[in-house]
Amino acid sequence: MSKKKETEKNLSSLKIIPLGGLEQIGMNITAFEYEDSIIVVDCGIAFPEDEMLGIDLVVPDVSYLKENIDKVKGFVITHGHEDHIGALPYVLNEIPVNVYATRLTVALIENKLKEHPVPKKAKLKTVVYGQNINLGDFRVEFIRTNHSIADACALAIHSPAGTVIHTGDFKVDFTPVYGETIDLARFAEFGKKGVLALMCDSTNAMRPGFTMSEKTVGKTFDTIFADNAQNRIIVATFSSNVDRVQQIINSAEKFGRKVVIEGRSMVNVVSTAVEFGYVKAKDTTIIPIETMKDYPDDKLVLITTGSQGEAMAALSRIASNIHKKVTLKPGDVVIFSSSAIPGNEKNITKVINELSQKGAKVIYSDAHVSGHASQEEIKLIYALTKPKYAIPVHGEYRHLSMQREIAMAMGIPKENAFILNSGDVLTLNEERAAITGHVQVGGLMVDGLGVGDVGNVVLRDRQMLSEAGLIMVVMAIEQATHEVVSGPDIISRGFVYMRESEELIEELTDVVNSTLDDCYCRNITDYSRIKNRVKDELSDYLWKRMRRSPVILPVIMEV
Amino acid sequence: MSKKKETEKNLSSLKIIPLGGLEQIGMNITAFEYEDSIIVVDCGIAFPEDEMLGIDLVVPDVSYLKENIDKVKGFVITHGHEDHIGALPYVLNEIPVNVYATRLTVALIENKLKEHPVPKKAKLKTVVYGQNINLGDFRVEFIRTNHSIADACALAIHSPAGTVIHTGDFKVDFTPVYGETIDLARFAEFGKKGVLALMCDSTNAMRPGFTMSEKTVGKTFDTIFADNAQNRIIVATFSSNVDRVQQIINSAEKFGRKVVIEGRSMVNVVSTAVEFGYVKAKDTTIIPIETMKDYPDDKLVLITTGSQGEAMAALSRIASNIHKKVTLKPGDVVIFSSSAIPGNEKNITKVINELSQKGAKVIYSDAHVSGHASQEEIKLIYALTKPKYAIPVHGEYRHLSMQREIAMAMGIPKENAFILNSGDVLTLNEERAAITGHVQVGGLMVDGLGVGDVGNVVLRDRQMLSEAGLIMVVMAIEQATHEVVSGPDIISRGFVYMRESEELIEELTDVVNSTLDDCYCRNITDYSRIKNRVKDELSDYLWKRMRRSPVILPVIMEV
Repeated sequence: MSKKKETEKNLSSLKIIPLGGLEQIGMNITAFEYEDSIIVVDCGIAFPEDEMLGIDLVVPDVSYLKENIDKVKGFVITHGHEDHIGALPYVLNEIPVNVYATRLTVALIENKLKEHPVPKKAKLKTVVYGQNINLGDFRVEFIRTNHSIADACALAIHSPAGTVIHTGDFKVDFTPVYGETIDLARFAEFGKKGVLALMCDSTNAMRPGFTMSEKTVGKTFDTIFADNAQNRIIVATFSSNVDRVQQIINSAEKFGRKVVIEGRSMVNVVSTAVEFGYVKAKDTTIIPIETMKDYPDDKLVLITTGSQGEAMAALSRIASNIHKKVTLKPGDVVIFSSSAIPGNEKNITKVINELSQKGAKVIYSDAHVSGHASQEEIKLIYALTKPKYAIPVHGEYRHLSMQREIAMAMGIPKENAFILNSGDVLTLNEERAAITGHVQVGGLMVDGLGVGDVGNVVLRDRQMLSEAGLIMVVMAIEQATHEVVSGPDIISRGFVYMRESEELIEELTDVVNSTLDDCYCRNITDYSRIKNRVKDELSDYLWKRMRRSPVILPVIMEV
Repeated sequence: MSKKKETEKNLSSLKIIPLGGLEQIGMNITAFEYEDSIIVVDCGIAFPEDEMLGIDLVVPDVSYLKENIDKVKGFVITHGHEDHIGALPYVLNEIPVNVYATRLTVALIENKLKEHPVPKKAKLKTVVYGQNINLGDFRVEFIRTNHSIADACALAIHSPAGTVIHTGDFKVDFTPVYGETIDLARFAEFGKKGVLALMCDSTNAMRPGFTMSEKTVGKTFDTIFADNAQNRIIVATFSSNVDRVQQIINSAEKFGRKVVIEGRSMVNVVSTAVEFGYVKAKDTTIIPIETMKDYPDDKLVLITTGSQGEAMAALSRIASNIHKKVTLKPGDVVIFSSSAIPGNEKNITKVINELSQKGAKVIYSDAHVSGHASQEEIKLIYALTKPKYAIPVHGEYRHLSMQREIAMAMGIPKENAFILNSGDVLTLNEERAAITGHVQVGGLMVDGLGVGDVGNVVLRDRQMLSEAGLIMVVMAIEQATHEVVSGPDIISRGFVYMRESEELIEELTDVVNSTLDDCYCRNITDYSRIKNRVKDELSDYLWKRMRRSPVILPVIMEV
């Protein structure tokens, strides 16, 4: 290991080490290492895969940073979305260093840290566009971009080995809702000076053309509001989409409606955004949900969470009539201002059906645009920055692979375009670039307050339990005589409805008894052998009789 | 009940009773009742919802048919897809009557009944297009339609109260792959004579325009085959899409390639279709998978299951390199000739990523058309049949509701368009139509060989077990003294990795011991009270310490 390190050092190279965010959407975190300095870009969570039963979220394994804790100079954060900031409350406990971000991003991180305090050593530092911060051998400049949240940045990461441009999540919006257009001129300036590598957002790399301006959605809202002047309007969107909320408020004010904000994360994000001036509304526009009853339907807009059909979100509760403060009425207009995140289609459809069945008019299309760059915008960034190396980031393999094709179309030689896996160590300088190693990475599953204490063994058990439930066989055996003095009792959960299965339970008890008799006759007294025999016999019997494989758990109490 | 029946009888009305298939995709089954005659149209399964953990499939509750078994004259089946025939092996055991269907449909049902034999009283009867069968007071004519499988039918159901047209699943294909265009003239003839009600497929009611001909996919295959002349081609599609398989074979023969059929259901359906002449191939075209190695890549096409990303299907096994007979090579071209069924998007994406990562070229778009009628085709059927009443079938609420709008646009008064729920009894004649009652309906969950023995209690347990696992507390208590003579032992599954959680186990044991001590002191000797106390204390402790709620199962052995 130390020998390898030496070789790498002799190159006087920069190392780029993604600790997550590749092979998946979410959990973005990348380490940049130059000699004795490490900086970390973003620190996000991923949402659990379907097979991660009972898991709340996934945070990156930062063992590599822990091993090199003395080198780590700070986190630089591109914008305030969960997949870029969500793991900070977990990671800062282990890597207590400063966090640098723009104003809204800092405010949103502060919000998170209220619930999960971290060591005081880790301070939040607010930066502005164009500002440079020095972190060991690195100098990082924050560049203005557009995204679906204000204060989004790209980063120019300067090291003695060269400059890397990291776009963060971005799009090119010539008519942004908040602030100004992405600072294309700055990208161009870096391009003129020489960019070693471009790490560019791949989320929409499969979409041809140019992503529409966020402002086009505002026009759609105006049209929908005009068409439905008599009805109450409910808009479901991502709480993270601050600009979208602004536009709904704009339309509401234009049409003389009051705005109610509903859903925990929506209230959190919007109140922060209002407090810091990123969402602007007249003093009287936003009203508490409790006063909603004082206004007629045609004077109301609800902005709510639940656009992905999440079972516990406000919109789903409204749809299934279990929301405490909002009752759906026939004639209500429900706008989904969102697109489906893959995997959520069925839940969304369920909510739409429920809403329609109760007489609501559901508008699903046209009230959303993406916050990510399409192919022509990606090309624009390549054209401006003219990087030597291309390192597509943010996305599954098919997205990264498509961006590699775009990079090649823009003149990057294939051998200079790298599709990395999380954990790969890409060592690069002006002379050459190569994957020179691999560090430990992975997702730590968060279940309640536990981080990483649920692993694959536990998940496999949960999977098996979920498919066929559990049968326990409990008995007490007299130590001296090896005789069964109580039981065997058969107890089950998630297997069959026991009260209606007396016959089956009797059969299973018979199987256990005859296995125990057999063990006794053969003088088998080792408990683990007895337990294994019981398990095998029951398992065979159940498969033959009913083609099921519950978890079987024999328990022997010795008395 | 008998009084109500009398009233209904006086109307001399037809009753239409959907026993499934509304509020959902799948499980199509509808009873038609006129006085002492009942016929049943279709008998399909539904695939389990996400929350039906461990369930293989869902079959309809036919209690209503059982209660009226003497009236039931037979099943008439529209076509050979699972959501129309899949429940026959289960239902015919309880309702052993004849089944009437066209030739391919009968062959596919026979296939099913090989594995699940049913009473001999239930016979399969083959009918041809245009044939009428008399079933009690009903006469049913089978009308030629187009769908993604040959031999699909609409039904003209004649009763003394009037004629109902049931379209089955259909589209209008002027250039079908097998057979002829839907018999539009026959629909028109019935329209002239007078149609009481139209029950029309709503699956694609939300799609404007006209569904493309299946033959257009054949042209796409030709183009892809021409563009990839040097590579092995793998096509994943639905095994039920017999016409699609025919077109892949056509292209293979045109380009001089051999065809390998892979995947259990694909082999089943295709061999039946070939045997009965519904798929035509030269004798030498289809080769056994074992001989694949004798041919170069550019002479091979694999037709396989797995287009929905199903984990155990052939394509997924190929993608993850665990298929025993097929190894993916860089350069292989994989065509998804399918669209995503909602809920499967994530699995499909996973397979696409795996295939791409191994160097395969994945073609996802343009190699599929739907087998269901779009809006203009639905309008055409309304225009031809001119029904008095519209009863949209096949689809979720939003689809049914959209067809109702189409029906209204075609001149059906709103009060004559019925969106039914499963179990509704729609009583109708030329004078009037109304929902006059409701019968027991529902889905019986099939788990292994068990039908209906897993209910909501068991599912809730599976859900809870899947989210946080299980903790068992086992102890032996001396009957006379009420003293704990063995244990308490703490055993868990799916909770935490026990070997790394000794400290936690000790804490939990302490909680149990102090609870038991407390019970002993207070002279609480009732086992169920003790168990409840242990459960509550542990549950509180676990929530406070780790925000988790495993299933807690205290077991007391009395010795």
